[in-house]
Amino acid sequence: MAPPVTVNSINPKVIECEYAVRGEIVILAQKLQEEITKKPEAHPFEEILYCNIGNPQSLGQQPITFFREVLALCDHPSLLDKSETKGLFSSDSIQRAGKILEQIPGRATGAYSHSQGIKGLRDTIAAGIEARDGFPADPNDIFLTDGASPAVHMMMQLLIRSEKDGILCPIPQYPLYSASIALHGGTLVPYYLDEATGWGLEVSDLKKQLETAKSKGIDVRALVVINPGNPTGQVLAEENQKEIVKFCKEEGLVLLADEVYQENVYVPEKKFHSFKKVSRSMGYGEKDIHLVSFQSVSKGYYGECGKRGGYMEITGFGADVREHIYKLASVNLCSNISGQILASLVMSPPKVGDESYESYTAERDGILSSLARRAKTLEDAFNKLEGVTCNKAEGAMYLFPRITLPEKAIKAAGEAKTAPDAFYCRRLLTETGIVFVPGSGFGQVPGTWHFRCTILPQEEKIPAVVTRLTDFHKRFMEEFSD
Amino acid sequence: MAPPVTVNSINPKVIECEYAVRGEIVILAQKLQEEITKKPEAHPFEEILYCNIGNPQSLGQQPITFFREVLALCDHPSLLDKSETKGLFSSDSIQRAGKILEQIPGRATGAYSHSQGIKGLRDTIAAGIEARDGFPADPNDIFLTDGASPAVHMMMQLLIRSEKDGILCPIPQYPLYSASIALHGGTLVPYYLDEATGWGLEVSDLKKQLETAKSKGIDVRALVVINPGNPTGQVLAEENQKEIVKFCKEEGLVLLADEVYQENVYVPEKKFHSFKKVSRSMGYGEKDIHLVSFQSVSKGYYGECGKRGGYMEITGFGADVREHIYKLASVNLCSNISGQILASLVMSPPKVGDESYESYTAERDGILSSLARRAKTLEDAFNKLEGVTCNKAEGAMYLFPRITLPEKAIKAAGEAKTAPDAFYCRRLLTETGIVFVPGSGFGQVPGTWHFRCTILPQEEKIPAVVTRLTDFHKRFMEEFSD
Repeated sequence: MAPPVTVNSINPKVIECEYAVRGEIVILAQKLQEEITKKPEAHPFEEILYCNIGNPQSLGQQPITFFREVLALCDHPSLLDKSETKGLFSSDSIQRAGKILEQIPGRATGAYSHSQGIKGLRDTIAAGIEARDGFPADPNDIFLTDGASPAVHMMMQLLIRSEKDGILCPIPQYPLYSASIALHGGTLVPYYLDEATGWGLEVSDLKKQLETAKSKGIDVRALVVINPGNPTGQVLAEENQKEIVKFCKEEGLVLLADEVYQENVYVPEKKFHSFKKVSRSMGYGEKDIHLVSFQSVSKGYYGECGKRGGYMEITGFGADVREHIYKLASVNLCSNISGQILASLVMSPPKVGDESYESYTAERDGILSSLARRAKTLEDAFNKLEGVTCNKAEGAMYLFPRITLPEKAIKAAGEAKTAPDAFYCRRLLTETGIVFVPGSGFGQVPGTWHFRCTILPQEEKIPAVVTRLTDFHKRFMEEFSD
Repeated sequence: MAPPVTVNSINPKVIECEYAVRGEIVILAQKLQEEITKKPEAHPFEEILYCNIGNPQSLGQQPITFFREVLALCDHPSLLDKSETKGLFSSDSIQRAGKILEQIPGRATGAYSHSQGIKGLRDTIAAGIEARDGFPADPNDIFLTDGASPAVHMMMQLLIRSEKDGILCPIPQYPLYSASIALHGGTLVPYYLDEATGWGLEVSDLKKQLETAKSKGIDVRALVVINPGNPTGQVLAEENQKEIVKFCKEEGLVLLADEVYQENVYVPEKKFHSFKKVSRSMGYGEKDIHLVSFQSVSKGYYGECGKRGGYMEITGFGADVREHIYKLASVNLCSNISGQILASLVMSPPKVGDESYESYTAERDGILSSLARRAKTLEDAFNKLEGVTCNKAEGAMYLFPRITLPEKAIKAAGEAKTAPDAFYCRRLLTETGIVFVPGSGFGQVPGTWHFRCTILPQEEKIPAVVTRLTDFHKRFMEEFSD
């Protein structure tokens, strides 16, 4: 018998799921990179510039020294007993590693932990949340996970029973959400962020979309809000957040708050407020609203994507539902311990008086101020391109410019059987080596075209990116001018 | 509106899923442990002895020094530039870390990697598989994952379309499989391992169960084989493996080979053979059989559970199906880089001539020979208990003794609304602090009762375990004697 597993016999939910951030354009980029490695003159550029994904260290961002010192010491605790170690590590990293090892039963960083993560680390994280918000946080509400993605999947798995269950998601959105909803067989209920008002979130639109979904027999279970926004970069105003919280409470929706960019805010007029803080400040407690906040070590100024650390803080669920969430976490045993340690570190970095404090703040502020400058430079460059408009990146790591493509380009895309924005991104890649993700991967108002570009190329490379992009864009617009 | 998420409105697949290894008994054990911590005299024992889970380092097993040296250096690469490092690390760990960092684009251990894992590390793993099997392995067939569990979920997600899709699973089985099948909405098709022949796997039983399932309209898609066995500890004979491979080929089943205990073989008359080696030695190639092999850094002599490293090697799938597997891997971006590095290390440990070679082999052989002694001591102790019989642990980390319980105990369990084996395990826990997992969590022939016990308590603790268990068992049997 011939092996029977073909695309016609695998789970159709898998086929339906899409993930543009690592989709077609990126696969082509990897192929071009291999070709350049073998034959440097194969293409009209020397290197591929990956602006497709929020992966700062892949583009040269250096890790925060203190964090890495602590991780190395926890990986090889016998270093703590040796005198040479003092010459190689800061005193507070040695102290912190010692403290963390004491919090780990048997000092065993190689053991599975409690399914929610090591209790002592969850205590540290809860204290960090309290310090951030000014409201209490309970370590038993924290579930440490391998990055934020598995936490999102866990909640989708919990909430989605069938295609009749809907999840309200922003459009444009980070495709993890559409992928996860598709894999779990639910229905994505879109609400549109308003590009004209800097990607504003209108509660009136939420209401409208909710009613439309209900009228189709969809049981809408949760609302996803990404703040600061991905791919849009907006930072929600506190007043707006209050309206959202009120809406979720009134409509009985779980608020799934993607807050992984909480440290990435670049404009003085905006500040990050967690949805937990906002809801508690409105007087809403455990019994009023189901609230889940996702955090990750992959973003912020730390950008430790490869460490796969993160957590979700869940509040407002009954003990019986929590038992099932605990069971889901248990099926995968636990998240990786280095990621758990790092999650505790980012929620409790060095403090005034610690030996590392000065170098730590210098590293942190250097990264964040450089990101702010890069965001501004790229925003300005996009806005100078013919037919392109770009909102400000108030936060996160992305710009999501809108591009008005000439009719001839749209026609050429149709002939190439590809979406117009994907057509543009593919041409950009093959001519310049720059990798953007087409807006169609994130969702956009029908008939509009966008692309997502990270602000992560190292600062000294930004002028070259701007030049290459600008030259390409001119050629492209000339080629397809009506 | 009151928050609407209750156990009545969550995904019923989540409710159905069970995971005994971290179930009720373990939750009770954690509670008792907290009580002892607060008040040492709270219970008639000083500590909880966790024999419920294959988590060696939680019970005192030390990590392999070389592996941890390399991990620490990769976590904090600037150590490699400092002269003091030579005094703290072995020369081959420094060399290996340097080589690994060169394999990582930009030396960035904090960056997301390729969705399948870092190419250079996959090359090392493929070379390790080739050296083990004597047949070629392709790095493009390797998917690095956060332990083996996510890889198993990925395959279940790919293969299961509805409750009409079945997966043949051994009974008893490791509950990851039943949990994953339940979560993905498929049907577990059981086949029984034969306790009387040392947990033998009879292909005639496989055929019978397959036919029964087919007659009920189930489309059986895959066969799970755990070798060495969990919870049963048997090591399959090569001839038996050949029959299994032939059966899968003839019936068009994907062979899902859980080979995470490949280094854990304790008897000279048995040897581990990978299913890939067996199928290739039979002349079956890519086009003949879909084969997936799971490996993990959590088991073996390394026991690095907390690092969440592992991989699956997939062969025999068409390019289009592989694209969808790649997409599934991409939705979670990548597995953690330390786990990836460790997976490469366990498949390529120090070699003759390396500075660490001697200490590495001493550590490895010390752990494996001690595990073999512990297995034998516990097996003998179980076989001395009234009404208990226990097969040999040829491999893996577990014993799965059968217990014939007195009628009165079965009645008492019924009154306590619990399974008789769970009743026994609960009593054992509350009276001695020893944590076993009831056989009902793994599946067993109806009417028989078992429990799973790991062989992992440190060797000096084994006599106390035996004494406490033996004394408890006598009391229990007296109390419930007919």
